[in-house]
This record gives sequence, structure tokens and C-alpha cells, in this order.
Amino acid sequence: MKAVEKLNVKTKEGKHICVGLDSDISRIPGILLNEKNPVTSFNKKIIDVTKDLAAAYKINFAFYESLGRQGFDALVETVDYLPDDVLIIADAKRGDIGNTSAHYAKAVFDELGFDAVTLHPYMGWDSVAPFAEYEEKLSFILGLTSNPSAGDFEKQILNDGKYLFQKVILKTGEWNKKGNLGVVFGATKLDELKNNFELLRDLPLLLPGVGAQGGSLREIKEFFSSVGKEDYIVNISRSLIFAGGGKDFEKAVELKMKEYHAS
Amino acid sequence: MKAVEKLNVKTKEGKHICVGLDSDISRIPGILLNEKNPVTSFNKKIIDVTKDLAAAYKINFAFYESLGRQGFDALVETVDYLPDDVLIIADAKRGDIGNTSAHYAKAVFDELGFDAVTLHPYMGWDSVAPFAEYEEKLSFILGLTSNPSAGDFEKQILNDGKYLFQKVILKTGEWNKKGNLGVVFGATKLDELKNNFELLRDLPLLLPGVGAQGGSLREIKEFFSSVGKEDYIVNISRSLIFAGGGKDFEKAVELKMKEYHAS
Repeated sequence: MKAVEKLNVKTKEGKHICVGLDSDISRIPGILLNEKNPVTSFNKKIIDVTKDLAAAYKINFAFYESLGRQGFDALVETVDYLPDDVLIIADAKRGDIGNTSAHYAKAVFDELGFDAVTLHPYMGWDSVAPFAEYEEKLSFILGLTSNPSAGDFEKQILNDGKYLFQKVILKTGEWNKKGNLGVVFGATKLDELKNNFELLRDLPLLLPGVGAQGGSLREIKEFFSSVGKEDYIVNISRSLIFAGGGKDFEKAVELKMKEYHAS
Repeated sequence: MKAVEKLNVKTKEGKHICVGLDSDISRIPGILLNEKNPVTSFNKKIIDVTKDLAAAYKINFAFYESLGRQGFDALVETVDYLPDDVLIIADAKRGDIGNTSAHYAKAVFDELGFDAVTLHPYMGWDSVAPFAEYEEKLSFILGLTSNPSAGDFEKQILNDGKYLFQKVILKTGEWNKKGNLGVVFGATKLDELKNNFELLRDLPLLLPGVGAQGGSLREIKEFFSSVGKEDYIVNISRSLIFAGGGKDFEKAVELKMKEYHAS
């Protein structure tokens, strides 16, 4: 199934949560640290108790790359373990030119088997094109991110009065000939989502910033419901996957997932 | 030795070439394909015949990540093999927020042992800060890149009349409190280097675009010599490492390296 179809099937069922597997080994329950690969074991438990309600899983590469080979193994084992019907996103924020970008696309899509990826826009179309050639995959371009210093460049105003991030979203719309591009848009401030909705309307959206970063899932759902947009997913990481700490940590995660889903 | 000191020692000796290990397995000599890890074997041969004249080596992560575990091994083995006195650059173009960025820095600097890294500026200071905390390392921020679609965003004009890439370079200068930040600046067009030199003067520079991409090393050297700037390196990849194809391919690479160095 095409990545965008996976997204559409889940979101039409009212499932909008992307479980962010930011599986920082320094924060996973101590009881798992004797396992062969603690991160893999942790992820499997998280997946088991969230998969019925999840639309997608997002693997944050930083937490795997920082563990070297052990992290690489955990990443591969996690992708293997994930169900086929959920969207599996490589949150790798790649971006490079031409032939180099083609090799990054090969790594993420062919070698590691992800359905989707996150990409930096800075270098322009050359850096996106090799990913866009994978018709059955989905590439989310960074639009507005949820961090305080998004103002440094993303919110610089161009000489036509637009913010840079608005230009990026406009360009992504123009580039989206094959219907396999989407946008990352920080969900910490609902007003910004509302103010930019016309730009975002026709693109699949990945919204980080809910949970530990302060965004409200309920408000986002209400807004999108009011405007009839369905193809969006909201990433929740730390406040979900680290909801429990003890022996039965996954029970707390399961409960938290249900709470978020029902919100 | 601090990364910036490694750079300064080599460049004061008149060595300015950064050997780009874009070691695409589909292009390395067939004679190596039966080796345990062909990419490692190729890189070792390249390093052997270039190290006396090289200022730095740049490992383009895409070509390693696209090979999965084999690529990961080649990357680690190549870093291990490189001499201690050359600057070893992770051309990984990372960029993410806060704690995630800290894990990317940990991966590149602590886990893999690189001296330097390339970074995307899009998300602003939050994404650079965790790298900048490594005082003894060096982080090159993408300023102007050498690809045709650099115009999509990098050359957008801001409402103060500056190009976005100029704003990025200005900010990099402001952020450079510890003297461990530099800039990537595409060297395909010498005029752009000249026109932006005042912005670039006080920052270590990594200049891609020479060789296959058309930039001239001689012209760059002449220009920097005329303005008294020494702390720059010029990346040369494909036109150098794939200079030879047969059994004695490294002889052609050695010759090419001497030619470039003398140019």
C-alpha cells in the first residue's frame, strides 16, 4: 500500500497519533537494561500497547545513531517489528544535493524500509527531488518547527512579505506533482496553524509539539474537524513513551495512549 | 588537538584540499568488490595516496548509510584508519531541536569520533547549540551550497535586502563565541565568494564544488591569497577519488592529488 494511503486509512478511522519513538536509553525503565538490546525491547513493549490506536510511528534517528551499532540494530529491529498497516516515518531530517540525496533516499526507503521521511528544505528542490521520485513513499518537508529559535530563519520575512516557512510550504505544494509530499508544522501554537491553514490544506501534515512541548491534541483535532481536514498526524513522544517507569511501565503507556486518543 | 588547530596547522602549510570520501560502491574499482568490505578497502587506498597533501577528509554519510550495516562498518573503519593530524569531517548535514540535536552531536563526535560536522541552519540556534558546546570540535553551518536549486530558499531576499544565506552567515558569526563554528560555501562561482568575503572573513570555510561541479581550485587559492585568508579547505570528491579505474587506480588518484595541490 502506498504510504499516503496508509495515512488516509488510519486518519479516516479517526486515528491521528504518531507515536514518537525518541527512545533515549537514559530514560527507558531500568528493568530493561539487562536485555540484549534494551532499546529494541522498550520499543516492542511500546508498540504492543499503542498499535491499535496509532496512525504512525516516527523513529527519531538521533537516539539510535548516538548508540552506534547497538542503535543501528535497534532501529532495524524496530522497523521489522512494526505492523505493516501503520505509517513508519524516518525522522532523519535529511537534506543534501543530487546524487548524495539519492543515496539518502535509498538508505531510508530501500535499505531500512521506511514508508516516510522528514527533510530539510534549505537546499531546495535538488535535495527533495530524489525522495519525491519514490512515488509510493511520503516525504514531509520541514515547514515551521516547534522550537523557540524557529524565529532565527524560518520566521524571517522575505521581500514579498511572506515568512520563509510560508515560502517553503508554497513550494512544497508546487513540487507535489505525485501527491507524495507533506509538511512538518509545529503544533505548539494553534493560532499559527489556523493562520496558515490555507497553505496547508492540501498537504498531509505531520504536527510535532504536542505533549512535553505544550501543544494540545484536542484543540488541533477540533480545529481540523471544523475545517474538514483529515490527513494529519500529531506526533507525541516523551510524554507518551515515558509515561510509566516501573516494572509495568507499559500499562501507564497504554492508558496514556487511550487518554490522548480520546482527547 | 582542537579541530580548529588541526585545520590551521595544515592550511598554514599550504594544504587546502579536503578529500571527499563519497565512496559510491557502484563506482569503486571492480577489483575491490571481493574484499571483505570494498568501501573500507577503497578508502584505505585513497587515504594512503592522499594523506601527505590533504588538510582534511570528509565522509559523506549518504554513501555509507545507503549500504546499511556494511556502510556503517566502512564508516567506522575509515575513521579509525585516518591519521590523527588531519581534520575528519562528518558530512552528515544534521539539524534538529534541543535534546535531539544533542544526541546527533553525541553520535558524530563521541560515538564516531569525528572532529567536525556539517549542519543545516533552518531550525536556528537551538539546532546548532548542542554541537557548539563541543569546544574542541568544529561545526560547519550550510551557508550557500553549490547546487542549482540553491535559489529556491538560500537566495531568497529578506525584507532587509539580504539573501537568506547571508543572514545565516551573519548569525553564524554572532554564534561563534567559542571559535568552533565555520561555514559551508559553494565554490562553483568565484564571484559569489568575492562578493561575500567580508561576511566570511573571520570564519573557517569549507568550500565544496571544485572538480566535478566546475569550481576552480587555483582561482580560489589566488583569491584567498590576495586577501590574506588561510583557514579554508576546498572539498574535492568524485574527480579525485574516481580518477583511476583499473588495478593501479590509486596511482591515478595520487597523481591527481598532486596536480590539484600544485594548482
